[in-house]
Amino acid sequence: MEVKVVQNILKANDSVARVNRARFDAAGVLAVNFIGSPGSGKTTVLEQTVRTLGPLHRLGCIEGDPYTTRDAERIGHLGVPVVQINTRGGCHLEAAMITQAADDLDLTGMEILLIENVGNLLCPSQYDLGEHFSVVVLSVTEGADKPEKYPVAFQRAGAVIINKTDLLHATDVNLDEVTATIRRFNPDAPVFPLSARTGEGVAPWCSWLAGRVKQSAGSC
Amino acid sequence: MEVKVVQNILKANDSVARVNRARFDAAGVLAVNFIGSPGSGKTTVLEQTVRTLGPLHRLGCIEGDPYTTRDAERIGHLGVPVVQINTRGGCHLEAAMITQAADDLDLTGMEILLIENVGNLLCPSQYDLGEHFSVVVLSVTEGADKPEKYPVAFQRAGAVIINKTDLLHATDVNLDEVTATIRRFNPDAPVFPLSARTGEGVAPWCSWLAGRVKQSAGSC
Repeated sequence: MEVKVVQNILKANDSVARVNRARFDAAGVLAVNFIGSPGSGKTTVLEQTVRTLGPLHRLGCIEGDPYTTRDAERIGHLGVPVVQINTRGGCHLEAAMITQAADDLDLTGMEILLIENVGNLLCPSQYDLGEHFSVVVLSVTEGADKPEKYPVAFQRAGAVIINKTDLLHATDVNLDEVTATIRRFNPDAPVFPLSARTGEGVAPWCSWLAGRVKQSAGSC
Repeated sequence: MEVKVVQNILKANDSVARVNRARFDAAGVLAVNFIGSPGSGKTTVLEQTVRTLGPLHRLGCIEGDPYTTRDAERIGHLGVPVVQINTRGGCHLEAAMITQAADDLDLTGMEILLIENVGNLLCPSQYDLGEHFSVVVLSVTEGADKPEKYPVAFQRAGAVIINKTDLLHATDVNLDEVTATIRRFNPDAPVFPLSARTGEGVAPWCSWLAGRVKQSAGSC
């Protein structure tokens, strides 16, 4: 019974997600879903992304969090239109929440919609939001074994960011080893080691993302 | 419909949890449920706890993880009886899983049962496992705002461990500030800043836990 209900919920979610994606395609918006543990640095990655790409592209943002509007305020301060979704304890965003949030954003002329999911490496990877791809943000302080323990998020990712490389020296983590583990679950996704705090490594990630905007505008 | 089903599941889980707790009480076992984000250091905290309390008390362990038996192997190497639960992607442990795992452990003479939940600050705090209290493990690298964003886990905790204090100097986090935020959501739970990697601060945490064993044997 439980499984049946969950499957129905996922099926309904997928239908709404398809509608969302068609809407983003029609508006020429590239939608990206950022997934990661609490404190992996998703919001700081988004801040750096906005600082780098903001002057070049029209951006929008949807911020998901169980509680507080803190992250939306951080992104809003950078002059980007942002909508906060509070899940009131809910462990993931769902497609219908994105439909509603998108109603509150002007998609006209928008090129990239950055969606920050709830801090959780498990449940969010089950729910298609209508994004074009997801990006997993993993921090080096979480340890090297996370791709093995939470494989689904990594398998489905369009790119993986390894954040907090400025703390690498203080951990036992080997960057090559983590990258190799990620590639074992996802050989195709580009992997971007970076420090969202210092800005080191942010440029290659942003260049890659900007390249996807053009592809999206051309082919989606 | 969805909410109704979820409520039924939680209600059924609570019934099983009560049976688990009665079983632990009858056996004189103190059961503790460790909750935290992926990479907060739960397993390393358990390793240090086992090293410190193992020579003094009879311990057992249940390790929850979406995939891999890595954590159970780490604890098993320390000579403690351990059972691994793989949730196959599931985002939390449930009481029925603990019932089954407890069948595979000899509770006779056991004084503390350490249960490591799946790495997730949200879903595990909804599911009573039959533990006597939960302990939230938060690492300083996750940032100071986590208690506000994930309040339920903190509100329900019997103790909070602030882990990875050896990395404090490399972060923007102020320990007093995090402690004050935790206390705002839970004024009663003791807060233990420690580094499970270096061992600093582990002693006060273990003394407190050992003190609970006696209380448990006397009053539960």
